[in-house]
Amino acid sequence: MKKYYDAAIIGGGIIGCSIAYYLAKENLKVGLFESGELGGKTTSAAAGMLGAHSECDDMNIFYPFARNSQLEYFKLEKEIRELSKIDISLCKGGIYKLAYTEKEKKEMESLCALPTVDWLDANQVISNESTISPLILGAAYIEDDVSVVPEAVCKGLGISASVLGAELHEYTQVYDIQKQESTYLIKTPAGEVEAQYVVVASGLWSNSFFESMGLSNRIVPVKGECLSVWNRGTVLNHTLFHEHQYIVPRMNGSLVIGATMVENDWNERPSLGGIEKLIVHAKKMMPEIGEMEIGSTWAGLRPQTFDKKPFIGRHPEQEGLLFAAGHFRNGILLAPGTGKMISNLILGKEVNKKWREAFKIERRHEVFA
Amino acid sequence: MKKYYDAAIIGGGIIGCSIAYYLAKENLKVGLFESGELGGKTTSAAAGMLGAHSECDDMNIFYPFARNSQLEYFKLEKEIRELSKIDISLCKGGIYKLAYTEKEKKEMESLCALPTVDWLDANQVISNESTISPLILGAAYIEDDVSVVPEAVCKGLGISASVLGAELHEYTQVYDIQKQESTYLIKTPAGEVEAQYVVVASGLWSNSFFESMGLSNRIVPVKGECLSVWNRGTVLNHTLFHEHQYIVPRMNGSLVIGATMVENDWNERPSLGGIEKLIVHAKKMMPEIGEMEIGSTWAGLRPQTFDKKPFIGRHPEQEGLLFAAGHFRNGILLAPGTGKMISNLILGKEVNKKWREAFKIERRHEVFA
Amino acid sequence: MKKYYDAAIIGGGIIGCSIAYYLAKENLKVGLFESGELGGKTTSAAAGMLGAHSECDDMNIFYPFARNSQLEYFKLEKEIRELSKIDISLCKGGIYKLAYTEKEKKEMESLCALPTVDWLDANQVISNESTISPLILGAAYIEDDVSVVPEAVCKGLGISASVLGAELHEYTQVYDIQKQESTYLIKTPAGEVEAQYVVVASGLWSNSFFESMGLSNRIVPVKGECLSVWNRGTVLNHTLFHEHQYIVPRMNGSLVIGATMVENDWNERPSLGGIEKLIVHAKKMMPEIGEMEIGSTWAGLRPQTFDKKPFIGRHPEQEGLLFAAGHFRNGILLAPGTGKMISNLILGKEVNKKWREAFKIERRHEVFA
Amino acid sequence: MKKYYDAAIIGGGIIGCSIAYYLAKENLKVGLFESGELGGKTTSAAAGMLGAHSECDDMNIFYPFARNSQLEYFKLEKEIRELSKIDISLCKGGIYKLAYTEKEKKEMESLCALPTVDWLDANQVISNESTISPLILGAAYIEDDVSVVPEAVCKGLGISASVLGAELHEYTQVYDIQKQESTYLIKTPAGEVEAQYVVVASGLWSNSFFESMGLSNRIVPVKGECLSVWNRGTVLNHTLFHEHQYIVPRMNGSLVIGATMVENDWNERPSLGGIEKLIVHAKKMMPEIGEMEIGSTWAGLRPQTFDKKPFIGRHPEQEGLLFAAGHFRNGILLAPGTGKMISNLILGKEVNKKWREAFKIERRHEVFA
Repeated sequence: MKKYYDAAIIGGGIIGCSIAYYLAKENLKVGLFESGELGGKTTSAAAGMLGAHSECDDMNIFYPFARNSQLEYFKLEKEIRELSKIDISLCKGGIYKLAYTEKEKKEMESLCALPTVDWLDANQVISNESTISPLILGAAYIEDDVSVVPEAVCKGLGISASVLGAELHEYTQVYDIQKQESTYLIKTPAGEVEAQYVVVASGLWSNSFFESMGLSNRIVPVKGECLSVWNRGTVLNHTLFHEHQYIVPRMNGSLVIGATMVENDWNERPSLGGIEKLIVHAKKMMPEIGEMEIGSTWAGLRPQTFDKKPFIGRHPEQEGLLFAAGHFRNGILLAPGTGKMISNLILGKEVNKKWREAFKIERRHEVFA
Repeated sequence: MKKYYDAAIIGGGIIGCSIAYYLAKENLKVGLFESGELGGKTTSAAAGMLGAHSECDDMNIFYPFARNSQLEYFKLEKEIRELSKIDISLCKGGIYKLAYTEKEKKEMESLCALPTVDWLDANQVISNESTISPLILGAAYIEDDVSVVPEAVCKGLGISASVLGAELHEYTQVYDIQKQESTYLIKTPAGEVEAQYVVVASGLWSNSFFESMGLSNRIVPVKGECLSVWNRGTVLNHTLFHEHQYIVPRMNGSLVIGATMVENDWNERPSLGGIEKLIVHAKKMMPEIGEMEIGSTWAGLRPQTFDKKPFIGRHPEQEGLLFAAGHFRNGILLAPGTGKMISNLILGKEVNKKWREAFKIERRHEVFA
Repeated sequence: MKKYYDAAIIGGGIIGCSIAYYLAKENLKVGLFESGELGGKTTSAAAGMLGAHSECDDMNIFYPFARNSQLEYFKLEKEIRELSKIDISLCKGGIYKLAYTEKEKKEMESLCALPTVDWLDANQVISNESTISPLILGAAYIEDDVSVVPEAVCKGLGISASVLGAELHEYTQVYDIQKQESTYLIKTPAGEVEAQYVVVASGLWSNSFFESMGLSNRIVPVKGECLSVWNRGTVLNHTLFHEHQYIVPRMNGSLVIGATMVENDWNERPSLGGIEKLIVHAKKMMPEIGEMEIGSTWAGLRPQTFDKKPFIGRHPEQEGLLFAAGHFRNGILLAPGTGKMISNLILGKEVNKKWREAFKIERRHEVFA
Repeated sequence: MKKYYDAAIIGGGIIGCSIAYYLAKENLKVGLFESGELGGKTTSAAAGMLGAHSECDDMNIFYPFARNSQLEYFKLEKEIRELSKIDISLCKGGIYKLAYTEKEKKEMESLCALPTVDWLDANQVISNESTISPLILGAAYIEDDVSVVPEAVCKGLGISASVLGAELHEYTQVYDIQKQESTYLIKTPAGEVEAQYVVVASGLWSNSFFESMGLSNRIVPVKGECLSVWNRGTVLNHTLFHEHQYIVPRMNGSLVIGATMVENDWNERPSLGGIEKLIVHAKKMMPEIGEMEIGSTWAGLRPQTFDKKPFIGRHPEQEGLLFAAGHFRNGILLAPGTGKMISNLILGKEVNKKWREAFKIERRHEVFA
């Protein structure tokens, strides 16, 4: 007889691991299937900035969802450490979102109107972080936009799920999902399993499942290149952010600089030209970074949907089949919220109606207009 | 209009790259599709021993095919260097296949009867390689079983094919191959192309294609773990071989020790226990290797068929569709022969009938009996 | 005019960085000189077990010093994070010091008599850690023998010192220290500086300074080889310890296995034979570790003195010259205590008289007899 | 009794290994002492361009010496492979020294007058290498300025010397050399040896020996930063060279881009700003290199003397003591010539008088004026 799971998760990135964790907490029998290693692709390439405020441009629907997910991290940190002994390196200090021009300052007005955000002028910013470029006009200071180490979160969620009973199948590619009478058949090279619920959480690699499930949804890659430097002199206490690029301090003494945006590039390695752009932009934020030692360079493919918002929800017609993919620049931030939302959908618990509408698979362009 | 290729190769390991090379030499318009990097999986994990003699137990069919492929390397080395500027590091010296017991010596009798193989007693062996264990009875010396660096061969064949006009699509997974009227449609996340001929050369990852093409053939993994050491003292001039394990000298001063055989393990990383076994066996062949510095450790998944011989040939029913996969322990050795055979099949040239029969997809168990 | 420091520290391992930190806290003008990178040698090779109890055999003098240093870590963790933003990954859980025989159990009697240590029988141990070998009789459980990541501690102390005003000169070898009238002249390839106090904290590389300062003290290397594994299944909550070997869980999901003891070997790389020994011993403690994925392998040279205790104190004749070197297996554990003791000696504060006697440079064999 | 060597070489970079090799060939009993690994510092950071023509500005003395050394490589390649089984990857194709302006073209006139050098106009250059910038005026083509892999040469010379009887002591720092009656005493942490001849070949790290030997000679570092890229598309058949920067094709499919010139920087790691400069300059030579994948980044410290020429010769007063250090940008190119010259000096064979004068330790500024 085939192995049976209440829920099979396809994909062991941070989204899949979060779903596995929240379902395992609810005592479902969970199997997670990952073609490589947990968090080995898009997840481990991310810088881990939890930019609920700094990355949001839609305050109506997206911000509350993101903010909710961000707050979950403050609980998760302890839960993960206790279950898996893994430290997610939640790094406080928050973000300085820099403005160099009056135009940039004006664009941040609605952001700065939030109770959790303050505008600081150049003097204030530089007196706190003396290495920031003196050319800034000021910065929005967002204390709650902390950062984590994405790989650690992903592994931590996965192993915690496993401690709670989930089964993690790494190096196990799912090549087909077939509807049966009351369950799904999950086909892998290592054999077949059955599951009542299937959640496709394969990020950029979800397209073949969309296609075989009769959905026209597609996800395209937006490559992001990154590098790290070793900060031996001055300590950077805040993440610096400008024009979608950032310098994130890590708690091991390094700084992560990211990230470029290269549409439709499937190559998972950074290019020379991408690295050059990162250095130029980082020096604009923090001139002395040019003197620091380069650490490593890497790249990851962000999964982008047509409206840059994730697909989270049920297949419009097939009972028991769900999707959670396409988190673009915000996979780390949205992982806990996504995990909880999928868990609630499966368990029949209440889910915020606006979010259900906004992220549903079958939505059309107007939603976020 | 869709891009058109005369031949689309699915898989950029050494087999796929060899096929691309031999087809490009014949002026076919070739497209190669690889989900990661050229040679990034099974190929780069191999030690690169060209064991036409030492690995063969079937002198009737398999040996001539292997030997033919081995001889091709002596031409390929120069062709690849001239076209791609890549050096495949063909390392001469040959193999000492060691015997510790009379039984092992006896089992090598038919091997030693070949004109290209000599039996050397312990004194002769040790006077040439003073570091070999004094416990041996002797060794079969096979001068022609040289070695290459598999990753270099694969990249060299790929880039040479590209210089001859082939198009290499790395980071491009093929998720479906559909028969059309006179061509095949190759579906990838980056778009679709058309091809008259399709060759599935995806090694272990060919199963989903077998399945979707209506074939019951399957390939299973046999994981092989390896490690390298830095040889700072004595120089090892021959590959040592015993019970399917080996110590292969590389031309950069390292020795490659391989390889374990772990059936049905899809995990691509070496285990502690596997590394321990390798060390124990290597010390049995060359006691002082225990003093050498460990370099790196790695693993690869060998693609094994039901009879341990590759599938090379046409789909039994579908015109224009071919397979070249399942080379088990001998992918590096057999790559040139496989590339030529597929090329000849596509171009309608003559192919040794015994080989066609022995490697055909639809064969049953009796062939190699 | 030459640059002047109140105190020049020679050596940027964990001992030198700790001294720099405690002196900088006291507002001394500190310069630290390191020939490579902070913590790049012996420090980063250590597993980071703070074995005040498990590593001590002298309860009279050494234990109180070690215990004092251990307790300092619980304060340091926060101080370092606040000053340098570096997390030292202090990992709780403590040590299980395993006994397989009645003899081993008996040898732990005095250890178990300490109020901070408990004896657990096999059932208790295995019910807490199901992966421990069922062959044990039991274990001494030492909750306070936690672990840290040595490289992080070292960098954290160094950068914290720098934030407090110390100057860190990496890649700056000191090749001579010359006594002048009231100061010392420190010669480096990058130029000369003056200092009132000089502390030689160069670990194994202190011998040339002993010699040029007219001391017959010598430090010899005891190489320790280590490896790490990725623990994907079960979580290990305690460090396992047996016959000076250990398995230490890290908060990133890895386990560190160490360490061999190879006397008088200056080679800084692990040997094949050393790795084999580690695996054999680790499997004895935790059989299923053989299934885990190997991470990396490395080695470090422990600085051993004639009586295995460090030299901490003043040069017997030369005013202003101090030594802090030779911490053997316990450099991480003893770093805070050593830093404080040197700081107190320089500032003329009180220092425990027993410790001064026990660790003084000019001691002879009888001290720890 | 102490171990005795005819010649002790201090330093296991490419210069020291070359000296060891040429002395061992002459049947001297040679001991080589290296504080880390063979070729682990400046040597392995070099790109390996043998720029006898492209790097020379003194055609009278330096060029013949360099050219002589260059020609030696064509013999060495085979000798090293036979003795050590190491392939030095001698890569043919030569150099295109690019000119973008009439001024640059004019500066190459004397170079192009050499019989081994040709001027090619832009069309000729680009028809051979289509990826070179169309902004060039042309290039000097120097077929003989081939390249090697420096680490392989160094290891190959070292192991070949060892096969010929030399003893290589890695991880063995020499901290003092003392003149005795008829020999020298070499002091290392691992003990003392005696030698009739001592050759200091410690590159940048020779200063402390100069000082203790009463010489005022000094060597200062000029840091060079490098990076590699993976060339997957077009094949580059020539090294490109412009304003002391270069793109060197390697025979493994990578390109090495180097190198910056940072005076008096002892830090051995590349900085962000240095990497940026390399990318900008490389794109000027070969615009499409911006699209290529970055491989690794590294740096090395070139040993520069007051007149940028090496010190090769005898101590002016102390019999039996020789120096071979300070090869600046040309250590790889000059290694064979230096090894032979030192060997000839020790054996009392004839040495070109001009070279002896030009490279002698006690020279003053006028020599190369």
